[in-house]
Amino acid sequence: MRLAELSERSGVSPSMIKYYLRQGMLAPGRKVGATTAEYGEGHLRRLRLVRALVEVGRLPVATAKEVLGHIDDDSLGRTIRLGAALWALPHGPDPDESDESVVAARQEVDRLLEKVGWGTARELGSLSPDHRELVVAVATLRRLGYDWDAELMEPYAELMYQVAVRDLDFVESQPSDAEKAETAVAATILFEPVLRALQRLAQAEESARRYGL
Amino acid sequence: MRLAELSERSGVSPSMIKYYLRQGMLAPGRKVGATTAEYGEGHLRRLRLVRALVEVGRLPVATAKEVLGHIDDDSLGRTIRLGAALWALPHGPDPDESDESVVAARQEVDRLLEKVGWGTARELGSLSPDHRELVVAVATLRRLGYDWDAELMEPYAELMYQVAVRDLDFVESQPSDAEKAETAVAATILFEPVLRALQRLAQAEESARRYGL
Repeated sequence: MRLAELSERSGVSPSMIKYYLRQGMLAPGRKVGATTAEYGEGHLRRLRLVRALVEVGRLPVATAKEVLGHIDDDSLGRTIRLGAALWALPHGPDPDESDESVVAARQEVDRLLEKVGWGTARELGSLSPDHRELVVAVATLRRLGYDWDAELMEPYAELMYQVAVRDLDFVESQPSDAEKAETAVAATILFEPVLRALQRLAQAEESARRYGL
Repeated sequence: MRLAELSERSGVSPSMIKYYLRQGMLAPGRKVGATTAEYGEGHLRRLRLVRALVEVGRLPVATAKEVLGHIDDDSLGRTIRLGAALWALPHGPDPDESDESVVAARQEVDRLLEKVGWGTARELGSLSPDHRELVVAVATLRRLGYDWDAELMEPYAELMYQVAVRDLDFVESQPSDAEKAETAVAATILFEPVLRALQRLAQAEESARRYGL
């Protein structure tokens, strides 16, 4: 397809497409003339991901470029490739190690990972921004007087593992490694609001079942 | 306890405590002299919730006041009381009804709610900000070319229902209706980052199990 059709089908204006081409966030089309190029379904898919990152995820363009760079790096193993792309997404502040609730939270997180047998998460430890984010979130709960410990978190961890298995099944249904990585990133950004809304709706539903309206 | 101890135990400065008292977000202490008052565990608990709303949830003070007003309104039934407090939390933009992906998304959400049998959620429909937020999130996915439909969402909805049951069990373990409502609100704000981090850690774990590092 030509640029005009790519623009119409992706919902991205021609000038923004040209900008993404200059930034290297979109591969050049196949030259078919001095000023025209031909684009394919891969370009369309990539523009959807760029929109997910920039418009929905509100990532700065430099961060989006970094995420896309990991997706495009086929020298990496699949877990590392997905991980590198997901780790490049924005995360909250790092834990403040001088805070005693951070120390206690890290102990509980480590006990939790041992209880549920998540060996990779234990091995990576605070190398992973998600591990650091979990420690910060648990430390905040504990500082405010909610004594969340490994035992309280364990059933939630088991349920979120089942969610992750479904996520990976969906990612696996994509044909190529590049599409798998793209889908993993898009799902993380786009699907978290769906899960949050489902959880809140489910809370209202269960509350109505227990107590009436 | 006196103001100084309340400040130390809550981590809120005396001047901020006085500000929350003036704003009616904290009930006055019991007068024990012309310039001194005595505060109890209820004041401590409330200050923790105020910190959760204002410091962690970054709610504007006017919104936090509204949330607390619903928590304190014992004329309401329990589901409505929890619901009113949770609905007063910030939500995303409303769906744009002129957008055809919003129309399609609402159909899929309604089909989903019928499939999983969430009668209250169906009855309330777009009165609920969480219903509106779900429609917006699904519309965004669809607009970007991810055809999320009721069938794809159903297993996620069932898992999030199990999460909600655990949430309600935890809320129910609190002694009074006011504490139940406080816990529900604090859990919503403070616990969502924990769930998100657990989900991402679980994704990495499952990816490593399937594909190695």
